[in-house]
Amino acid sequence: MNRITTDEAAQLLKQQQDILILTHRSPDGDTLGSAYAMLRVLRDMGKRVNVICDDIIGEKYSYLLEGVEEQDFEPEFILAVDVADIKLLGSLKKKYEGKIDLCIDHHGSNTGYAKRLLLEECAACAEIIYDLICTMGAEIDEKIAECIYTGISTDTGCFRYSNTTAQSHFIAAKLMETGFNYFKINRLMFEIKSKQLLDLEQNAIASMEYYLDGKVAVITLTKEMMCSIEPGSLEYIAPLPRQVKGVRCGMTLKQVEDEHFRISIRTGHELDASAICAKLGGGGHKRAAGCSFSGTKQELLKRLLAAVQEEMDKTQE
Amino acid sequence: MNRITTDEAAQLLKQQQDILILTHRSPDGDTLGSAYAMLRVLRDMGKRVNVICDDIIGEKYSYLLEGVEEQDFEPEFILAVDVADIKLLGSLKKKYEGKIDLCIDHHGSNTGYAKRLLLEECAACAEIIYDLICTMGAEIDEKIAECIYTGISTDTGCFRYSNTTAQSHFIAAKLMETGFNYFKINRLMFEIKSKQLLDLEQNAIASMEYYLDGKVAVITLTKEMMCSIEPGSLEYIAPLPRQVKGVRCGMTLKQVEDEHFRISIRTGHELDASAICAKLGGGGHKRAAGCSFSGTKQELLKRLLAAVQEEMDKTQE
Repeated sequence: MNRITTDEAAQLLKQQQDILILTHRSPDGDTLGSAYAMLRVLRDMGKRVNVICDDIIGEKYSYLLEGVEEQDFEPEFILAVDVADIKLLGSLKKKYEGKIDLCIDHHGSNTGYAKRLLLEECAACAEIIYDLICTMGAEIDEKIAECIYTGISTDTGCFRYSNTTAQSHFIAAKLMETGFNYFKINRLMFEIKSKQLLDLEQNAIASMEYYLDGKVAVITLTKEMMCSIEPGSLEYIAPLPRQVKGVRCGMTLKQVEDEHFRISIRTGHELDASAICAKLGGGGHKRAAGCSFSGTKQELLKRLLAAVQEEMDKTQE
Repeated sequence: MNRITTDEAAQLLKQQQDILILTHRSPDGDTLGSAYAMLRVLRDMGKRVNVICDDIIGEKYSYLLEGVEEQDFEPEFILAVDVADIKLLGSLKKKYEGKIDLCIDHHGSNTGYAKRLLLEECAACAEIIYDLICTMGAEIDEKIAECIYTGISTDTGCFRYSNTTAQSHFIAAKLMETGFNYFKINRLMFEIKSKQLLDLEQNAIASMEYYLDGKVAVITLTKEMMCSIEPGSLEYIAPLPRQVKGVRCGMTLKQVEDEHFRISIRTGHELDASAICAKLGGGGHKRAAGCSFSGTKQELLKRLLAAVQEEMDKTQE
């Protein structure tokens, strides 16, 4: 693995002709926004480019793909965006392991699986993409602005989270000048809920349990509760437990099988979610991380609460 | 009433010594943020300044007032911020009517009750305040940045609503450079909910009724539901009905007395909320407006739905 600069990445991409862009599984606004922004810029430069993902792309992201037809070519250059670990490629790992020419990422935890790495620990991978596109001297039209804005707004909770910087706002201001419809995007990403999702939210809040003197709130989603929900909808649920006054750590336990859980953890700026998840073999960002667990809910809670307590002791509050 | 420019307002304020700042009743982040930003800047310049409001200021805004002691003086200059109509001063109207030297406001509907008016139709009054402070050549420290940011972020729903502009983001970027803790503010404004509020939200969603083919969603809050809630909490409820997929107009009916309601209306960018409320004697912004009504809920709904239908017919969708 070789760390490269934005200038070097710009030069490298300009030299390529047939490019395949890989996104991470459970694709979110940042991996998709980054990928389709790059696809559009590179196609505008006359290159052949496709984007692939191991998972179904949520309906709400469909505007990112608008007007993009798959092209028929044999890729000569493999680019991964917002993929911190080769494992996050899902079933694509097998085919592309050792063959990824460039990874563009904003996760400090990036495992360095690619031949070259352009990494900056900013709020969203899409911020690096913005800089890269400017460095390449390419024009940012409304569609490209939509893609970049989607990455930044989704990863910052629409400029709410503690990862937001002056740079995030500055880029948003520059993108707004293209006149793209950010309001439509924000409504899709942060507001619109189906009646089913509203029901799920009601059930999720009703399931809320409190631990460690109310500092931890836990939502449990059973298989039955999740069955009628479209992919991506669960992003709405994970932030809920941490919204309760006094809660420092919010957990959402998704019961995938009777004794198998996927866990999402959200914390305030004084507690490290990725450190908590690391104790159960997971990872992520400082404020939003995840892990999985096989066993009963009781065992899982015991492990999680011990991990949270250990991290809380470190912050000496 | 005399429209003045930012330059003229800056000169005028520099010449004053003893200033009283008026805010609107049911004070929100923009009127308070604008007022306390001005108070801090003007006091830094050696002037005597107080802020007053007809209503109790919500606990969550207390950081805006931090370190501000009331000063003892007889005001010689009266400034109103974010007050579109003299009526919005509540009981202070009687004392100050005809005596307001300057109004700084962003509502196109401003009634021109002040001797001078500095008006720009931007997202938040705090954006005008930012320009004014820069024009005055004053320094923006962390506390002043907190005040201005609060105004912009609350009036734009943290940069989500359609009133957000490149300028809103640009100012946020400049404010972030002071290093103030925007995350603490966003958590206070948009995230933290008491368990009581969470209960209210559950009841509010359970009360949701749909009209006009699901294009209108209505929440009804009874007196009983609202009794244990602190002032300002209702701001969380008003955006909920419009979040449901397919809903173009969200209404929240607060039953103040058995046959007296206060109504909040939120719409998407294709429907004019203030036009709907104007038909019942109310007003506000295009996307967020309000009115009140004396009568039964049935009569109220009939009037409101007719008003919505009329506005929908205009948009020809």
